Amino acid sequence: MTANFADRLIWATRLKQTPLIVGLDPRSDRLPIKLRPEDPENLKSLAESFRQFSCEVIDVVAPLVPAVKPQAAFFEMLGPAGMTALAAVVNHARSRGLLVIMDAKRGDIGSTAAAYAKAFLGHDSPWGCDALTINPYLGPDTLDPFVESAKKQGAGLFVLAKTSNSGSSMIQDLIVDGETVYAKVATLIQTLSLQTKGEGDYGCVGAVVGATYPEQLAELRSKMPNAILLIPGLGAQGGTAADVAAGFDDHGLGAVINSSRAIIFAYENSMYAGFANNWQRAVEQATRDTIAQLAAETNARRLLG
Amino acid sequence: MTANFADRLIWATRLKQTPLIVGLDPRSDRLPIKLRPEDPENLKSLAESFRQFSCEVIDVVAPLVPAVKPQAAFFEMLGPAGMTALAAVVNHARSRGLLVIMDAKRGDIGSTAAAYAKAFLGHDSPWGCDALTINPYLGPDTLDPFVESAKKQGAGLFVLAKTSNSGSSMIQDLIVDGETVYAKVATLIQTLSLQTKGEGDYGCVGAVVGATYPEQLAELRSKMPNAILLIPGLGAQGGTAADVAAGFDDHGLGAVINSSRAIIFAYENSMYAGFANNWQRAVEQATRDTIAQLAAETNARRLLG
Repeated sequence: MTANFADRLIWATRLKQTPLIVGLDPRSDRLPIKLRPEDPENLKSLAESFRQFSCEVIDVVAPLVPAVKPQAAFFEMLGPAGMTALAAVVNHARSRGLLVIMDAKRGDIGSTAAAYAKAFLGHDSPWGCDALTINPYLGPDTLDPFVESAKKQGAGLFVLAKTSNSGSSMIQDLIVDGETVYAKVATLIQTLSLQTKGEGDYGCVGAVVGATYPEQLAELRSKMPNAILLIPGLGAQGGTAADVAAGFDDHGLGAVINSSRAIIFAYENSMYAGFANNWQRAVEQATRDTIAQLAAETNARRLLG
Repeated sequence: MTANFADRLIWATRLKQTPLIVGLDPRSDRLPIKLRPEDPENLKSLAESFRQFSCEVIDVVAPLVPAVKPQAAFFEMLGPAGMTALAAVVNHARSRGLLVIMDAKRGDIGSTAAAYAKAFLGHDSPWGCDALTINPYLGPDTLDPFVESAKKQGAGLFVLAKTSNSGSSMIQDLIVDGETVYAKVATLIQTLSLQTKGEGDYGCVGAVVGATYPEQLAELRSKMPNAILLIPGLGAQGGTAADVAAGFDDHGLGAVINSSRAIIFAYENSMYAGFANNWQRAVEQATRDTIAQLAAETNARRLLG
């Protein structure tokens, strides 16, 4: 039997003393020069570059953070070669002791949802991930196959509640009977979290909540006391460490904070110009700086013991 | 330049004289005996079986229907080997003159949405599909990268509006200002359809509308006069030909009707017991029977000229 994902994520967070996770979003035009393929139109070469870049990022951040979050779209963009690279990246992250949260935002009905769950959830699954992001638009019955699989596999789910983009208001902020759609989704997530609680307070069903709306973050934190929040949008998407403070409980737990581009492409940042010839050192420094910011401005400092 | 997807789909529908499309949803326990791998736990063998089965279905239905709809989840379930098989299936379908609508229900923000669009849309994309299903929960700004790409590539989109599962009511049926969420999504889709109109009445942005709610189908048909409806749920999911009649315009256009399991696993059906030793003949007969039902009970008969 595998332990509950929520417990595993909390242990990893305590071990690394930070809630920071690193998003793996490779882009061909932002790779360090020496990792760019000669022919970026050749999908196999580009997939190999994405694999190498992601694995080298993993090597740098593995001692520092509890988890990585590969963005499936950037690998899927390269066709089957990209998907083969993605599998190698997941394996490499796990071999370095990292939890892997696959950001694929899947969702479908009945047996199709079950197929996605079987694809991604658990170390024995074909993609071998620890957790997966999923989309609730199709309704609660379409989440059930994911939840069943997650419970069996010791895996986790992060259900989209409130996303960080401006247009997220169109559906998510609609108000019905005095309550927003995202709040209704949060109520559903809280029920599932409570039903899947591990040894600690949290369940294996968490929520994705964008960092660009701090007041909504506070509302959603209190609405889902048993759900771990996955908060993307720190760094390149505009969120600051202070913006995510409301995501944590009193022990500095209950949230993981994702930063992708600001860390993995740190070598482009003038702040890290001193590492111009060593992009991995820039990644390391950006990771350490972000960890320090989170510890300075949020309850994540409690993890320092 | 490639022609508008809506025009291409209509030409294909007129050519084949039917709006029926066939869903490619392979399942290991339902493959014809001779296509089952010796070891179904071996993902490479199973992926090869899925590829072979799907390609043989394609060979049968290519002369009869305008398009196929592979369900990405069933291939993704087999890891990278499954995705390689999926690419081969798409290529094979196109080589047989079929349009390919990838049912992957993708959706994400900004540059990530653009990556999914780049992955799937158009014959020059890595997956080389003609159209893709997408999820609107994240908001209209997250549809834009897909629409831009579709226009450029002569590709199409089908946005989830109302799905066929019972739990779809939770978000989709919420009523705000006297209007359901799915109707609001339909209004957005109609705007995008109108903006992407081809030579005929329809735009390259269509809608997914489940066949299990005929009265909602009629409502959505009239709300989206320029959107082609992709209607799944015929056959195994319980919808009948009469249930989908409201999806068509007066010319028998404006909708494509998907049937997956009832066709591809027809050899299991006692109706087709006479073809017990020839599963492809069962697929062919089930396809012909479904085409005839649609012609008998809907405006699709107008396509017979």
